[in-house]
Amino acid sequence: MHYSDILIIGGGPAAMVAAGTARQYYPEKSVTVLKKTKDSLVPCGIPYVFGPLLQSVEDDMIPCGEMAAKMGTTLIVEEVVDIDFEAKSVMGKSGETYGYDKLIIATGSVPKIPHQIENHDADGVFFVPKDPDYIRRMHEAVEKMKKIVVVGTGFIGIEIANELCDAGKDVALVGSRLLKHSFDSEMSAFMEEIVKRKGIRHYLDRRTCKIETDKNGRAVGVLFEDGEKVACDGVILATGYRPNTELARRTGLSMRQFDTIYVDEYMRTTRPDVFAVGDCAEKRHFITKRGIPVMLASTATAEARIAVTNLYSINLVKSFSGTIAIFSTVIGDTCFGSAGITEEDAKKEKISILSSFVTVPDKHPARLPGSHKQALKLTASRSTGQVIGAQVVGGIDIGEMINMLGTIIENRMTVFDLLGLQVATHPLLTSAPTTYPIVVAAQNIASRFIGEKGQ
Amino acid sequence: MHYSDILIIGGGPAAMVAAGTARQYYPEKSVTVLKKTKDSLVPCGIPYVFGPLLQSVEDDMIPCGEMAAKMGTTLIVEEVVDIDFEAKSVMGKSGETYGYDKLIIATGSVPKIPHQIENHDADGVFFVPKDPDYIRRMHEAVEKMKKIVVVGTGFIGIEIANELCDAGKDVALVGSRLLKHSFDSEMSAFMEEIVKRKGIRHYLDRRTCKIETDKNGRAVGVLFEDGEKVACDGVILATGYRPNTELARRTGLSMRQFDTIYVDEYMRTTRPDVFAVGDCAEKRHFITKRGIPVMLASTATAEARIAVTNLYSINLVKSFSGTIAIFSTVIGDTCFGSAGITEEDAKKEKISILSSFVTVPDKHPARLPGSHKQALKLTASRSTGQVIGAQVVGGIDIGEMINMLGTIIENRMTVFDLLGLQVATHPLLTSAPTTYPIVVAAQNIASRFIGEKGQ
Repeated sequence: MHYSDILIIGGGPAAMVAAGTARQYYPEKSVTVLKKTKDSLVPCGIPYVFGPLLQSVEDDMIPCGEMAAKMGTTLIVEEVVDIDFEAKSVMGKSGETYGYDKLIIATGSVPKIPHQIENHDADGVFFVPKDPDYIRRMHEAVEKMKKIVVVGTGFIGIEIANELCDAGKDVALVGSRLLKHSFDSEMSAFMEEIVKRKGIRHYLDRRTCKIETDKNGRAVGVLFEDGEKVACDGVILATGYRPNTELARRTGLSMRQFDTIYVDEYMRTTRPDVFAVGDCAEKRHFITKRGIPVMLASTATAEARIAVTNLYSINLVKSFSGTIAIFSTVIGDTCFGSAGITEEDAKKEKISILSSFVTVPDKHPARLPGSHKQALKLTASRSTGQVIGAQVVGGIDIGEMINMLGTIIENRMTVFDLLGLQVATHPLLTSAPTTYPIVVAAQNIASRFIGEKGQ
Repeated sequence: MHYSDILIIGGGPAAMVAAGTARQYYPEKSVTVLKKTKDSLVPCGIPYVFGPLLQSVEDDMIPCGEMAAKMGTTLIVEEVVDIDFEAKSVMGKSGETYGYDKLIIATGSVPKIPHQIENHDADGVFFVPKDPDYIRRMHEAVEKMKKIVVVGTGFIGIEIANELCDAGKDVALVGSRLLKHSFDSEMSAFMEEIVKRKGIRHYLDRRTCKIETDKNGRAVGVLFEDGEKVACDGVILATGYRPNTELARRTGLSMRQFDTIYVDEYMRTTRPDVFAVGDCAEKRHFITKRGIPVMLASTATAEARIAVTNLYSINLVKSFSGTIAIFSTVIGDTCFGSAGITEEDAKKEKISILSSFVTVPDKHPARLPGSHKQALKLTASRSTGQVIGAQVVGGIDIGEMINMLGTIIENRMTVFDLLGLQVATHPLLTSAPTTYPIVVAAQNIASRFIGEKGQ
């Protein structure tokens, strides 16, 4: 039997961060990672394999073997088939058994199969798994196609459609309002405009019921419920992911909503010395406190750090208080970010809110070359002014601006706190200090509390 | 006598934000701004007037008159010569008297005259005041010069040197380590490299004692204390600013260190109904709690919002707890940001600290086109892990990344809090979730607390 003090099942970002963090904190402990494939893809980099930005699938590879060696971690290519929690050991497909003192399950997620779509397994139909071999085969096939239908208007669907379009393909996108779980409709409107300008046809609110095939069983079109057909050479089903938790379920770990493994604030499962992190572990929403099927590498790595920090003793008492569902993406040349809850979801959850929407130039004076329009929607609790949601559109700095807004939400700052927020403003880097959108939007909301009524 | 419910003296960003905020919160109140010149310059945009980015001084103008009209504010071009706090009125140079219920002093700052430099008032020697007429004359004169010496290695000095260089001038920069009040030496080293590559000669740690002049009294060179001379056609003295507070001092307002007007947490002076905001008002440091001569439009506008929010009643109880000295700038194509305290200053203040310095690519995978190196230095209290300083170098997103770090400092987050920080990471916008520098640097510091010792 192979023994490790710390054993990690999985090979994605959460697993690798768990391994690295364990080696940093506990250099005298042995750490082993069991993963299905030697190397891994940068998960959120997969869409860029299909466009002009990355030259090949190899450009998106993480050299996990090298990384593990550098960290002083043992990496074994092995598929885990069973866990014996009493004996504290894990059984591999190879027949080997792996003992552990602490076990971290980071088995990630796999594409959700849309069983309601007939012929979803036809030739020329692809999902977007995080499997290097699959993506290599898919990439080769897609390169030969001209007309492609992408089903799914979440992040992966839109990003792949964008890249395929940049690669010169004729692209149709099928699904609902763009990124509707992370953005309100006024923000989706910006996206629709860009997608349209790029020549991607968006079939809005259309349900795909069947993949049409030729006599050889190859996909040649997509059929909607209303009878309309779109001809194509291939179909990409970007219809979401589900936690990869068959193993966990089979071994009797306590499960939660959306097929996730139950974890507490310290990422502990119901079994002693067994932790779960990343897409396979339960997620609750920071604001609504409900279970939420958010899958994010950044959340996964945060959970990995928390689990490892608390592996032997609780070192981090104030811990994870739920996911703030923080996302960013790029469509065309425009960047989008979202954190917290949308106005639409807040209304569904019966959260009483106030919102403000502001647009400003992202340089000052606005005449400076390269100035972009920046738009921000800020949502706060109507009773306390606590910021509970933010959505931004603009240039490349949106990537860090949404992280700043996330920090504001995580710290439970109110719009009143934001009135005195200290920010660096610079002509070439930000909007003017007088118009800095986070502060202006906060003030718009605060003004409903102050003044006449406040005197 | 002209009467206004709310009277504001000054015309910079703090004054304009105070006026706008007052109109938003208290639409039934009359608001008047008394300012020396009709229009104003975007203060931090002034350096860009001298380079290729802005076409003329007019491109950097704020149309204050228009703005005031739009806000429903009265704007009067008037220099205030006296204040009668008992009578609640202000005397203008024109002879007019202006009554008020609430008075906000936002007189800003003016260039510090370096009296120790002989001939600092010679022909061809310029300061960098926020005065449109002066900058117009200066711009005309500078356009005709070939060799220019910039004295001062703070933000304005370096930015002007950078722009003059881009405009094809032969530029010498005289002063100490670049931006030494905001960056530690390893960060200044990046700047020195860029400045050198651009062909700007940096005369390090040289004291200018005299401006050499020709027989007509025109500047033709700069003489250092050690006897070395640098020939030139003109000199720009970017040797700092001082609060514009003669009026306040003359009228007997209580003053503080660095010639600032005393203000409490709500921006109130010692006189009832009289507030002071911006560069003319006292500043204390968020970490050291000492007086600090930081002058920032973003801090000034935050103070203006706080003052107006608390004008009639305390609406914002938790208020300003000191300036975090948050700055950003661009040198060449590289962006720099700083917030909180530097390691050097922390040591001077005998703050026991731990620091971590990390560099990562700002896109992931790093092979993506346009990927920049990003470097972060994070400084935390050695006893509590509270983040007290951050410095970043990288691409354009540094502008908002430093604001995120400022938000972290203002919220007194610890490195332990940052282990679970939720950030959005995206291939085209940020470093990888596994290497996000704020979290990695925090973990490097946290690792000194956790592990062997923590078990």
